[in-house]
Amino acid sequence: MPTDASFSVPEIPFTSMAALRAACLSLPERDLACGDRIRQRDAALTKPPGSLGRLEELAVWLGEWQGTDRPALDKVQITIFAGNHGVVQRGVSPWPSDVTRQMVANFEHGGAAINQLARNAGAELNVVCLQNLKPTEDLSQTAAMTEKDFLSAVSAGYMAVSKDADLFCPGEMGIGNTTPAASLCAALLGGRGSDWAGHGTGLDDDGVRLKAAVIDDALALHSPILSDPLEVARTLGGYELAAIMGSVLAARHYGVPVLLDGFVCTAAVLPFAKITPEALDHTRLSHCSAEAGHRRLAAALALEPLLDFGLRLGEASGSGLVVPLLRGAIACHNGMATFAEAAVSQQSAPPTE
Amino acid sequence: MPTDASFSVPEIPFTSMAALRAACLSLPERDLACGDRIRQRDAALTKPPGSLGRLEELAVWLGEWQGTDRPALDKVQITIFAGNHGVVQRGVSPWPSDVTRQMVANFEHGGAAINQLARNAGAELNVVCLQNLKPTEDLSQTAAMTEKDFLSAVSAGYMAVSKDADLFCPGEMGIGNTTPAASLCAALLGGRGSDWAGHGTGLDDDGVRLKAAVIDDALALHSPILSDPLEVARTLGGYELAAIMGSVLAARHYGVPVLLDGFVCTAAVLPFAKITPEALDHTRLSHCSAEAGHRRLAAALALEPLLDFGLRLGEASGSGLVVPLLRGAIACHNGMATFAEAAVSQQSAPPTE
Repeated sequence: MPTDASFSVPEIPFTSMAALRAACLSLPERDLACGDRIRQRDAALTKPPGSLGRLEELAVWLGEWQGTDRPALDKVQITIFAGNHGVVQRGVSPWPSDVTRQMVANFEHGGAAINQLARNAGAELNVVCLQNLKPTEDLSQTAAMTEKDFLSAVSAGYMAVSKDADLFCPGEMGIGNTTPAASLCAALLGGRGSDWAGHGTGLDDDGVRLKAAVIDDALALHSPILSDPLEVARTLGGYELAAIMGSVLAARHYGVPVLLDGFVCTAAVLPFAKITPEALDHTRLSHCSAEAGHRRLAAALALEPLLDFGLRLGEASGSGLVVPLLRGAIACHNGMATFAEAAVSQQSAPPTE
Repeated sequence: MPTDASFSVPEIPFTSMAALRAACLSLPERDLACGDRIRQRDAALTKPPGSLGRLEELAVWLGEWQGTDRPALDKVQITIFAGNHGVVQRGVSPWPSDVTRQMVANFEHGGAAINQLARNAGAELNVVCLQNLKPTEDLSQTAAMTEKDFLSAVSAGYMAVSKDADLFCPGEMGIGNTTPAASLCAALLGGRGSDWAGHGTGLDDDGVRLKAAVIDDALALHSPILSDPLEVARTLGGYELAAIMGSVLAARHYGVPVLLDGFVCTAAVLPFAKITPEALDHTRLSHCSAEAGHRRLAAALALEPLLDFGLRLGEASGSGLVVPLLRGAIACHNGMATFAEAAVSQQSAPPTE
């Protein structure tokens, strides 16, 4: 937990949009002194300076947010937020909404991709069902959520994060949720439905055109609120997206670094980033999804994906996959010998970078 | 070990260039039926078809070469081949040749990056010193190796591979070895020294210009043999590069899939690929190095890097880092539930991809 004097922990659950907005604006900073000590040790390790590339930056990132010069990944928390979407009635997904609950059962029985990837990553996995999987309203007809239900979902996400986690990885499961995700992108980054609608979990080309039209309907209907990021999140979003935003806010307040997952997860935190530009400084993006729009969304947020494997599954699968790379980064930093310890000669000329 | 009738295991050590050439041309194929069974099971797993992106292809690759529809990574072998280079006398590295032996000691004491990454990957690590680290001749003055010493290095690499490994990851340590690596690229792919010389482990810009000139000297001196890939490997290469080529050949003969590492490792197998285009079908490229030329070399070999982390350390560090991603791929394939097992509804419309 940061000791930054300018920062105060908000009261949870959030009881008003104003309270949530205030919490999004009151963000503790990372510990830059830890980063300096990590860079100093890194320069003494038995390798040419800079030769571990992005692994060096990842060790600094983890250490600065964990507030230590020996970053750890003893407790890695993966939490999947599950929700359903009224907009599915418009035909934006080839899968029935029932699949959300069926997949939650699959997570609980250990049969999904993320179960295997979490085990491979040495991570804890848990699942939070929002509103007992009751769907939102159809965002192309009315606001997806009431203020009360939106704040409740954000608060559920906030409360799902363990204060003592070394890393938090939010994921999502929700049939139809690439439609609210694309709607958030169009509303907050500009463009029309066709700029952001993708094939999701297997929609055909006609389906993608329909989805784009549904998003355009929603943008037209909700045009008065498009300049307010939190109103956009409530009106065009979804329960699990709101929860992800709440969880990433909580992780920031707790000083827990975050790995973001694919298109829906990244879109979910876009409203937070629109409120305050440094909102996502404690996050890294695990991968670039095959879903149309993710690369552009990542670029708009200045997030550089760690992997580009063409994943498009959600469930925090990209983050689960990437956790061992972070373990590699800290294993090198914490475990390598220094030149002095190993009696290795240093360069005869100064390094050029 | 493949049962392909057209293939016969060569006699090791190789006693002539002709015998080595013949071995490079007698290559067993992968088991395509295993790949078909893997794809069939994949289609029944609880995820949208194709949604695990590159992980799906990696499971097929491992299974086809291991000859099983349940690929395993129980025994992952990382072997670092270490050698020294006469061309260092021309000033192509900012580090003294002594560092090669010092780093071998560091590997043995567990202090190097690859020690941490191998442990993180659950891999065995061993080190093979070629010619007791006696340097090659200076390739800009004469042939780097005699036929006898070259064949001995290739054979040492061949013999270093365990027949029962599930995956083999060759790595290298050798002060100055980006110069022979760049020389192999220029000789076999075209271009001048300046097209392939990079900063290596920290050479300054003047050093890179000198290195390019040294490579040009070598290309001019050895111009009569540039059309013969094995002669190029002997004349412009290095002991540890020859050993890597031998090890990748052995892995092919044994049906062991291979993860290639950075620029030097990839350049080392270029002569093999020039002899027969399908030589590297059993390999994947773990990462794209920051070393100038690696991206172009990878493209010339149609190898798509799995990671792009700006590593430039060698030591099989990129492969060590990537092994857990392969574990993720097979964990998903082997461990996920099918739609039937999990009672999850399938798509209501046929998938579009």
